[in-house]
Amino acid sequence: MRRTFFLSAIFYLLFSIPIYSQDNDSLAIKKFFDNALSDTTSYNNLRFLCTRIGGRICGSPQAEKAVQWSRTVLDNMGLDTVYLQKCMVRRWVRGNDETVTVYPGQKDNIPLHACALGGSVGTGEKGIKAEVIEVKDYDELKRLGTRNIEGKIVFINHPADPAFYYTFSAYGGVAGFRVFGALQAARYGAAAVVVRSATIAHDWYPHTGIMHYADTIKKIPAAAISTLDADLLSSLLQKDPGLTLLIRLSCKEDPETVSYNVIGEIRGSEYPGEVIAFGGHLDSWDIGQGAHDDGTGVVQTIEVLRLFRALKIKPKRTLRVVVFMDEEVDQRGAKVYADEAKRDHVKHIAAIECDRGGTTPFGFSIDASDDQVKRIRSWKNLLLPYGIYMFEKGGSGVDIRDLKSAGTPLIALVTDSQRYFDFHHSPADTFDKVNQRELQLGSAAVAGLVFLIDKYGF
Amino acid sequence: MRRTFFLSAIFYLLFSIPIYSQDNDSLAIKKFFDNALSDTTSYNNLRFLCTRIGGRICGSPQAEKAVQWSRTVLDNMGLDTVYLQKCMVRRWVRGNDETVTVYPGQKDNIPLHACALGGSVGTGEKGIKAEVIEVKDYDELKRLGTRNIEGKIVFINHPADPAFYYTFSAYGGVAGFRVFGALQAARYGAAAVVVRSATIAHDWYPHTGIMHYADTIKKIPAAAISTLDADLLSSLLQKDPGLTLLIRLSCKEDPETVSYNVIGEIRGSEYPGEVIAFGGHLDSWDIGQGAHDDGTGVVQTIEVLRLFRALKIKPKRTLRVVVFMDEEVDQRGAKVYADEAKRDHVKHIAAIECDRGGTTPFGFSIDASDDQVKRIRSWKNLLLPYGIYMFEKGGSGVDIRDLKSAGTPLIALVTDSQRYFDFHHSPADTFDKVNQRELQLGSAAVAGLVFLIDKYGF
Repeated sequence: MRRTFFLSAIFYLLFSIPIYSQDNDSLAIKKFFDNALSDTTSYNNLRFLCTRIGGRICGSPQAEKAVQWSRTVLDNMGLDTVYLQKCMVRRWVRGNDETVTVYPGQKDNIPLHACALGGSVGTGEKGIKAEVIEVKDYDELKRLGTRNIEGKIVFINHPADPAFYYTFSAYGGVAGFRVFGALQAARYGAAAVVVRSATIAHDWYPHTGIMHYADTIKKIPAAAISTLDADLLSSLLQKDPGLTLLIRLSCKEDPETVSYNVIGEIRGSEYPGEVIAFGGHLDSWDIGQGAHDDGTGVVQTIEVLRLFRALKIKPKRTLRVVVFMDEEVDQRGAKVYADEAKRDHVKHIAAIECDRGGTTPFGFSIDASDDQVKRIRSWKNLLLPYGIYMFEKGGSGVDIRDLKSAGTPLIALVTDSQRYFDFHHSPADTFDKVNQRELQLGSAAVAGLVFLIDKYGF
Repeated sequence: MRRTFFLSAIFYLLFSIPIYSQDNDSLAIKKFFDNALSDTTSYNNLRFLCTRIGGRICGSPQAEKAVQWSRTVLDNMGLDTVYLQKCMVRRWVRGNDETVTVYPGQKDNIPLHACALGGSVGTGEKGIKAEVIEVKDYDELKRLGTRNIEGKIVFINHPADPAFYYTFSAYGGVAGFRVFGALQAARYGAAAVVVRSATIAHDWYPHTGIMHYADTIKKIPAAAISTLDADLLSSLLQKDPGLTLLIRLSCKEDPETVSYNVIGEIRGSEYPGEVIAFGGHLDSWDIGQGAHDDGTGVVQTIEVLRLFRALKIKPKRTLRVVVFMDEEVDQRGAKVYADEAKRDHVKHIAAIECDRGGTTPFGFSIDASDDQVKRIRSWKNLLLPYGIYMFEKGGSGVDIRDLKSAGTPLIALVTDSQRYFDFHHSPADTFDKVNQRELQLGSAAVAGLVFLIDKYGF
């Protein structure tokens, strides 16, 4: 009997502590999810950001308003530190005039659902009227060459592949045509480009997004048309090759202006010099409300701090939300953040980005050492009850990637991607497309991970 | 050298076949997903069912139209067998009149967003006008007793708990008040009941659903009001306890009528007597379009057969889609299906139900032996690339549960539940709430599972 008792005691000592700890962690994680799912702060923050401020491209009055709003939200949370971090941003301004018209001037002219791509030059008041030539890709552009392209409007019509499960892969296959299409077409003397919107969805929304020029190649105007308009234009071209298109874009680029990252912190009780950073980006494209891209990431990462406060959990390390400015155009906020962190020798234990839409969270994509990936995987059973099943080594996000060179482990929240490109960079990216519970689950998932990283180190 | 070659050959024989097979299976599963994600048949089927036929409670002309439509869809697929299976169904008819009014007859009267619960008796033309008494649950009802309840309208206001990750659990905690609230309140002489809609969402949609009487207890009318109306009524009662409500419901129950399950099959090439059945239910509540509940399950399981045909895969076993009639009211289709299967000694290898909404699929809930659960889990890596990560022992669905007594392994497709009860049984359950890709993924997940069960037996 005694022997049995003795053995039991040893077993108890050997195994009870980790089990107890695991139970404690389960309970803590449950509290994060319970509180997040029962509290509407983040959803109401998103409502304000989307419906009262709206689309907010960097350098715009709306972006400035969003900076002040973020600061006020953080100021009202009773954090230890709240401050702005200055950065210069480009100031591209969409004009009132952005039309792409088939058969311009004719009675049966067809105005397409179109928008200027971000960064595009304007067309001048009269617009550009020219024959259209459709290409599927750069190979076709090259084959046609200057002889066929010069002076024409190039229509790049490359549908996204719906067969990818992860829609970012489909997007990755076509986004390049938006970014570099004008540059490539200009090599052959094109007058302008029209690109099929970078989405799998078949609807009438044009999707904008950044495009780039090269200094040595003529800058030509670039517009996107909706996928249904692209199908329509393509079928019109079947019957009437070389039909005429008129593009009018009154967008322009003003001088650079001042903007800010917005930062808030709960200071660590034991290791204040070790920072766990998490954030989303405050700027958004101007033709929607910047709901899923990336209002949700902003309010979710602010919510992480609210959750620690609400649950009265004092972190050992410093928890820092970074509301990044200018992800969409030139990532200036990200650069300034990384530069100043390097200058000030900030020790980032981990950096987490939320910028894949505010849909149901599935897990984390981890750009870190194998040991760190293994560490995060060891917490899987704590998060699995909340649908967080994916712990993959992989890429993170644009706003934190500059921290990589300092050896910071980077992590991206992975969410359900199926609906994301229905909204992305389009007028459809509005508050009503965000489900409250899906948003809340994302906050809790990040908070849970931050809790574990803080508790056990990383 | 020879020896090495010999050993290599043995290793090849020992290990190459299963590896080769796994690769083959991966490829087959990929084809199901590729095809499903690239084909719009199921989405267009759902569009027709929801927008051309609409809400279709059993016994209604719409349900009859849906039966004929399903049969035509299956007939046009070139299957081996298509037939109807007769069942008698209840015929509850919602009236034109369904109002719940606070302060009736007064100038500042407030009409609430309300609907009759399915199966409720009507109120007569004049309606029922009485004082309201709010209760949270049956304990409170019991505490108040006949003395306080008699002649009054009982308002059961029990909010669903948002803290559950899986929203069916939240629903499970409150649906009973809808089903048995009238019966329980009638025990204490209540004149009628009004219940808070069984959903976590805070909006103005009333959610209907079946309710039951007992033969020995007086049948009193029962209506649901939206959750925001419930909050409003509750706050009005704080200021003005016992305020008056008028309920008018012109619903009624007509004699039972004939309806049908609709069945389609691809006959097995090797074991035609072994049936893998899968289905959803065709009937729906009448105040929406029956999109997520359960138009999606119907078109997804029909799609499984289309996928096998499109990929030219000849199953060894018989694949059978069962489009069930009357899940919502009395599960008569399910009973007839199970009874006739028993009578005819049909050997079901597995039965799969899709009735948890057409959102992103996560996996399967498996009501089967441990060995069978293990078998399905062994296929996890084949399905994980498509987000199918959950393979849990658990309940299945109402339409296949009667097959349990014959020892049939039962399986339910588990989908993302976060948005489901925003729509469930309400006017919001419409076609536009279904995302095409999420729908397609569900079909492919079931088709993939059916493929593996057919190939390896079960």
